Amino acid sequence: MYVQVSVLAPNVPAMYEMHFAVPMAGAVLNTINTRLDAKAVAAILRHSEAKLFFVDYQYVRLASDALQLVADSGAPVPLVAVIDDIDTPTGVRLGELEYEGLVARGDPAVELPQLTDEWDAVTLNYTSGTTSAPKGVVYSHRGAYLSTTSLLLSWGVGNEPVYLWTLPMFHCNGWTFTWGMAARGGVNICMRDARAADIYRAIARHGVTHLCCAPVVFNILLEGDEATQLAAPVNVLTGGAPPPAALLESIEKIGFQVTHAYGLTEATGPALACEWRDQWDRLPLSERARLKARQGVSVLSLADADVKNADTMASVPRDGKTVGEIVLRGSSVMKGYLNNPEANDNAFKGEWFLTGDVGVVHADGYIEIKDRSKDVIISGGENICSKEVEEVLFRHPAVSDAAVVAMPHPRWGETPCAFVVAKDKAAGVSEDDVLAFCRKHMSRFMVPKKVVVYDALPRNALGKVEKVKLRDEAQKLAPAVPAQKTKGKTTNTTTVSGRRGEHPVAHVMAISRL
Amino acid sequence: MYVQVSVLAPNVPAMYEMHFAVPMAGAVLNTINTRLDAKAVAAILRHSEAKLFFVDYQYVRLASDALQLVADSGAPVPLVAVIDDIDTPTGVRLGELEYEGLVARGDPAVELPQLTDEWDAVTLNYTSGTTSAPKGVVYSHRGAYLSTTSLLLSWGVGNEPVYLWTLPMFHCNGWTFTWGMAARGGVNICMRDARAADIYRAIARHGVTHLCCAPVVFNILLEGDEATQLAAPVNVLTGGAPPPAALLESIEKIGFQVTHAYGLTEATGPALACEWRDQWDRLPLSERARLKARQGVSVLSLADADVKNADTMASVPRDGKTVGEIVLRGSSVMKGYLNNPEANDNAFKGEWFLTGDVGVVHADGYIEIKDRSKDVIISGGENICSKEVEEVLFRHPAVSDAAVVAMPHPRWGETPCAFVVAKDKAAGVSEDDVLAFCRKHMSRFMVPKKVVVYDALPRNALGKVEKVKLRDEAQKLAPAVPAQKTKGKTTNTTTVSGRRGEHPVAHVMAISRL
Repeated sequence: MYVQVSVLAPNVPAMYEMHFAVPMAGAVLNTINTRLDAKAVAAILRHSEAKLFFVDYQYVRLASDALQLVADSGAPVPLVAVIDDIDTPTGVRLGELEYEGLVARGDPAVELPQLTDEWDAVTLNYTSGTTSAPKGVVYSHRGAYLSTTSLLLSWGVGNEPVYLWTLPMFHCNGWTFTWGMAARGGVNICMRDARAADIYRAIARHGVTHLCCAPVVFNILLEGDEATQLAAPVNVLTGGAPPPAALLESIEKIGFQVTHAYGLTEATGPALACEWRDQWDRLPLSERARLKARQGVSVLSLADADVKNADTMASVPRDGKTVGEIVLRGSSVMKGYLNNPEANDNAFKGEWFLTGDVGVVHADGYIEIKDRSKDVIISGGENICSKEVEEVLFRHPAVSDAAVVAMPHPRWGETPCAFVVAKDKAAGVSEDDVLAFCRKHMSRFMVPKKVVVYDALPRNALGKVEKVKLRDEAQKLAPAVPAQKTKGKTTNTTTVSGRRGEHPVAHVMAISRL
Repeated sequence: MYVQVSVLAPNVPAMYEMHFAVPMAGAVLNTINTRLDAKAVAAILRHSEAKLFFVDYQYVRLASDALQLVADSGAPVPLVAVIDDIDTPTGVRLGELEYEGLVARGDPAVELPQLTDEWDAVTLNYTSGTTSAPKGVVYSHRGAYLSTTSLLLSWGVGNEPVYLWTLPMFHCNGWTFTWGMAARGGVNICMRDARAADIYRAIARHGVTHLCCAPVVFNILLEGDEATQLAAPVNVLTGGAPPPAALLESIEKIGFQVTHAYGLTEATGPALACEWRDQWDRLPLSERARLKARQGVSVLSLADADVKNADTMASVPRDGKTVGEIVLRGSSVMKGYLNNPEANDNAFKGEWFLTGDVGVVHADGYIEIKDRSKDVIISGGENICSKEVEEVLFRHPAVSDAAVVAMPHPRWGETPCAFVVAKDKAAGVSEDDVLAFCRKHMSRFMVPKKVVVYDALPRNALGKVEKVKLRDEAQKLAPAVPAQKTKGKTTNTTTVSGRRGEHPVAHVMAISRL
């Protein structure tokens, strides 16, 4: 029924344009995470049944490998078009088609198909690509519109923003700001990589007013020699983890004004935003950071986000103590997973989407996460499903049992830590061997930073792996914090906000509290 | 199917609250223009079939007269509840019920009906009340939501605005800002009258950031002794007529930042906004005023507003010259007129709502009105339908023919000017007699400021009154500009922007150019 168009590209103008061109042509845009490996990309191309595949010249090798895997599997291979660099064309090709050439051949007078049902699909975003049943999240035109306008309002984006593309557009369509910038008459500053020098240069040159990024980018911005007082404030929307007090102080001191949001692919990006109240400006930093670390209120109305007892589906009281599952409903929640009825059944309870995250509601209606969904590791802003890593480990010929949990990491917030049991206790299994196997069978960012060999995994009476114990262990194994240039940005703050003891970014902060 | 709840009240807290309470109770809110006379109010109560009628204590006399007319007509009389003054209760009643008493008796635990169809009616706003078939404009929940969020974005309203209620809430539900302020966590400053002293006091005391008003309020703000430099900028959304250059300069000089919008009741208030571009700040005042006088772009997307040849429904070119009718479509356009199939047939052509206003589209996509719908006179921000005034004139026993056109007025922008023909030429008919008759049979603001007796009205070959000639005449008859305190706010500007020669507000400006 739908025609999917896949794209593998960084934040280049063509990627932005396709957020309009593809839906206007009546097709569905599928942006692919450039950090995936060929196997994961191939799984997405197969599952989405993409008819057309745009590939940025930088990713021709990855795409080529993925296309080979698609061909080998006997699945239909999409038509390929390369996106060359717009400023300095390289001539790199993969087949005959090239993006700008296709655009030049377009007919400006063509009659575009009119959308007749606002619930029709507009984009397809995969939350993972390696499992046998990839989860392709489908957004509708209606959901995308409402998410876009809601988020613009929630973040307070005015007219004519100048937006710097540090957040990949392949993440929930740039948290809807691909469309949002057009809606507010904004200027889009595209960049292939989010390097500190490039970010600071773009801010100065273009008068950037807004950008989005994971907290890991704050570190990039503070570490470099380029870190400098901004000439004008830049609004930053961040998510994935709450910004800890000291990091917040450091980044805000030089002119970044941080808003904390919470979301997930299934909610078209940010679903909650910690909307700031002017009266909080007068509070001490630790208190401000505590308030800002909360995930916040639903973009536009709390009726669409709630914390409920997962069994009874009764709302928890607004006491800041009673925990429940964070649930979402409304048009901004995905239509569903593409061709994956089982995942759809598990994702919803009635009209409510289950996030898997555990939280509380404070007296003022702000939601705060107390414990995150156990099987998700957020590394440098990318979600890693621990189950997917485990599946690969189980395929290792010398491994009989495996479990993966989050380990704090000074740069990436979290990284996967693997615990494995050797099939042959006498022969054992080496960390290097397991790591080499992982590098071969999964995307690079998913590879565990640490592999621990156990005689047996801790299991409870029901035979379930006790991940709480493994997390405690991973906590101890976390890499030491490297020496870091602080550039005089030390603070006197002693309170670090966090939703649990092993808060991933809290460790990063230790250095700025020295 | 729907239950209507009517309200006759100024901008008091109860009026604001009812914008939520009534829809939440599953009923439809009908706010009535307090400037109407008893007959017009009665016509609305009858046509809306209101079951409940909230009346502010200030309007008990008007309501009482209207209810008597309803009773006399044999129509069902609604239940009445008085809204007493919240700060200093007066004890004035009309029957037994009183608003705060009803609220106190409410059950906070009551199960509210859930909205099952977003197209269900939310409010009912009458564009006129005196004709035999009143035009009751029905808004849907969906339309109200989309209008509200679009307008917040278009005007660039951030979080926690402090909004001053100068614009009556009975005008298109306060141009949607009743709901809009709640959506942004705003503070509502309610005031019974928009007097200059009260406005300046409220701005200073509450830190007002936003207000809406007709251009006539600019004069009120500039005339009084209270006119003073604002401590912080106040954003003003204005509509009804484009703000002329000199008035714009005067009002912006003291700290009001004006955005010009265009709309009508049928479009849930503002449908176009002249979204400002930073680059225009560098232009000379006359050029800025020319740009700001344009009606602008559709709130969010030009696809929903267009200028078309009314016969072919082809879009006019973007040349700033070719005129056509301004047409609107989309969810923000009313569901339709209540129980008025004929008016509905005339209002729409296919999916497009016909505004009756004639305009052009400039190269940058901004729409500018070139001629307004002929039968509407905008006086002090209130629409007067010339046909309604004519209908009353025709009922005068000594009048055989009548026509009403707009006459420029230094304070109100426009006022109705009547041209009548005496039945008995010898006996004639006096202006005073006609005016007395008008005052008795129509709302005060609709009464012509001038009555001219002609031997015969100018008519074309088809027998149609040549209103163009009458407008020329009315132009000459316009009252002289009264002496006005200028308080040193004279300007050197010689250009007055306007969409046509007889621009109603242009005359007001003469004084500030002295």
